[in-house]
Amino acid sequence: MEWSSDHLRMLDQCLLPQREVWLELRTWEEVRDAIRDMAVRGAPAIGVAAAYGMALAAMSGAPSSFAGDGSCPENEEGIGGAALSGAYNGLAASRPTAVNLVWALDRIMALPSLTFDAILAEAQAIEREDLAMNHKIGELGSALVPVAAQILTICNTGSLATAGHGTALGIIRTAHQQGKVKHVWSCETRPRQQGLRLTAWELLQDGIPFHSIADSVAASLMRAGSVDLVVAGADRIAANGDTANKIGTYMLAVLAQHHGVPFVIAAPTTTIDASIPDGSHIPIEERAGIELTEAEGIAIAPTGTPVYNPGFDVTPGDLISAIVTETGVHRPPYSFR
Amino acid sequence: MEWSSDHLRMLDQCLLPQREVWLELRTWEEVRDAIRDMAVRGAPAIGVAAAYGMALAAMSGAPSSFAGDGSCPENEEGIGGAALSGAYNGLAASRPTAVNLVWALDRIMALPSLTFDAILAEAQAIEREDLAMNHKIGELGSALVPVAAQILTICNTGSLATAGHGTALGIIRTAHQQGKVKHVWSCETRPRQQGLRLTAWELLQDGIPFHSIADSVAASLMRAGSVDLVVAGADRIAANGDTANKIGTYMLAVLAQHHGVPFVIAAPTTTIDASIPDGSHIPIEERAGIELTEAEGIAIAPTGTPVYNPGFDVTPGDLISAIVTETGVHRPPYSFR
Repeated sequence: MEWSSDHLRMLDQCLLPQREVWLELRTWEEVRDAIRDMAVRGAPAIGVAAAYGMALAAMSGAPSSFAGDGSCPENEEGIGGAALSGAYNGLAASRPTAVNLVWALDRIMALPSLTFDAILAEAQAIEREDLAMNHKIGELGSALVPVAAQILTICNTGSLATAGHGTALGIIRTAHQQGKVKHVWSCETRPRQQGLRLTAWELLQDGIPFHSIADSVAASLMRAGSVDLVVAGADRIAANGDTANKIGTYMLAVLAQHHGVPFVIAAPTTTIDASIPDGSHIPIEERAGIELTEAEGIAIAPTGTPVYNPGFDVTPGDLISAIVTETGVHRPPYSFR
Repeated sequence: MEWSSDHLRMLDQCLLPQREVWLELRTWEEVRDAIRDMAVRGAPAIGVAAAYGMALAAMSGAPSSFAGDGSCPENEEGIGGAALSGAYNGLAASRPTAVNLVWALDRIMALPSLTFDAILAEAQAIEREDLAMNHKIGELGSALVPVAAQILTICNTGSLATAGHGTALGIIRTAHQQGKVKHVWSCETRPRQQGLRLTAWELLQDGIPFHSIADSVAASLMRAGSVDLVVAGADRIAANGDTANKIGTYMLAVLAQHHGVPFVIAAPTTTIDASIPDGSHIPIEERAGIELTEAEGIAIAPTGTPVYNPGFDVTPGDLISAIVTETGVHRPPYSFR
């Protein structure tokens, strides 16, 4: 993802790894659609994208007819106040679970002057800071990685999901640079296969030894003693450490506890939502059933098959051995403020 | 699957549910290939198919050049002794995990007279008996299903996987006929999606209420109290109850224990291998990586992605609340002879 004079360029992650297509987004509505349709995904990355979306809204200055479900903080300062309110609401409603999205939007709206230049500079700052946080998370988290580690991870939490380096994959990257990673098990991550499509793409590029596995293989790998550590990202962390992340993360946490394997969450503090006491307050997005029933546009399930397709689950804090943010390695019981 | 005067007709399960194509198999080698390529799958069904494969070998009577890895019991009686030895070895080696395959082949070779007529009659008896065992399993197992039950299952264990009715799905069918099934959660069952393709197809035909889910959703459904019972089939059960079944079954057993949900295995006694003391002796088939990395013939993972793709896992007997066979509901500690 990169800002290019008057528009946002973005690698369309729906088409990876088969095709590397760069989208050129020129309106906040296009950014909203890219987030909703998951051309960009990963909690930190959609925060950055949303901030750039606000810059596009300020650039156009035109009022928007969008009626979002969110509530925009009152702020009619600067140019394009109505457009910014519409953009805020529309972007905030594009995906419900990751808190980084609203965090980035609120940071934009809190600017003393809502000019295009000020918003663009803030979006770029958010992107820069996210990259720095990820490097710090990698450094702090790599201390939890034993020598010759076999690490299991889920979904994509790398450069594609963040401003760069990654959160859980950032820890793996840093530990690999330190020579400590023997092997990575990368869960496919049904239904959208971010692990199989995107994490495999990043691991191959970095030359980190790995195998892709079906999500259901994790249990028998742990039983065989082939997993020393599980690392995962987060979309929202409640004050007590309850963590929403990609569906399947909770499964891994239960399996890790059963097999005595440490289970670590990696996320910048922008993923922490201290306003909610626990995970029961996190909205869980339910996505369309065709994510499961179609493959490459072809129906693979019988016509009429009903599907339950939650995008996320919540892992209770007490199943999480450590939460690594850029501020440190946090241990249970968690109490974020 | 049905015998038709001089050949075996078989619904190609690789093409379901999109297309209903009947294969006409006229040699034992074609049966072997159908088992290996999973046109027919499910431990009881491949036992029946292998028995019919022996009938085809006896019909041809021609010597075979196949050099299998198995060992054929010495038996040169009747017509086509060499052909039968080759067919035995070739069919026995087609898939390694399910014991029903070798059990059916051994039953054929133990016949006093290895004529075509005798072998065909025995294959038909094996099929008929499997159907009867499944109905008995359904009857016995349905007693474990509470009223208004929410039942979770994996893979396909229905009519397609057996001679009819099914094992785990047979219990669901019988319980549904008794009015006790509120809802079924049908795991997709990556990588080959037998749950999404085949179990959904059978559940729709029977009008049993269900949702298909990604395998990784099972954990959060259990946490939400939406699963009262897990039922699964088996490919081989050791003397101590350790059970090999479709990859992901062990995951479900651990999750069920964590959430206090009963976990039940359903299988005919032909799936029990009392010759091995525990699950460590069960060979686990590793299948080609393209089962994960391709969808409908299209590559979805980056070129060069390494894959670990075991077809089965082993669930320790002590995680299994009950094993239902046609002889009764067995409880731990198991001791099959």
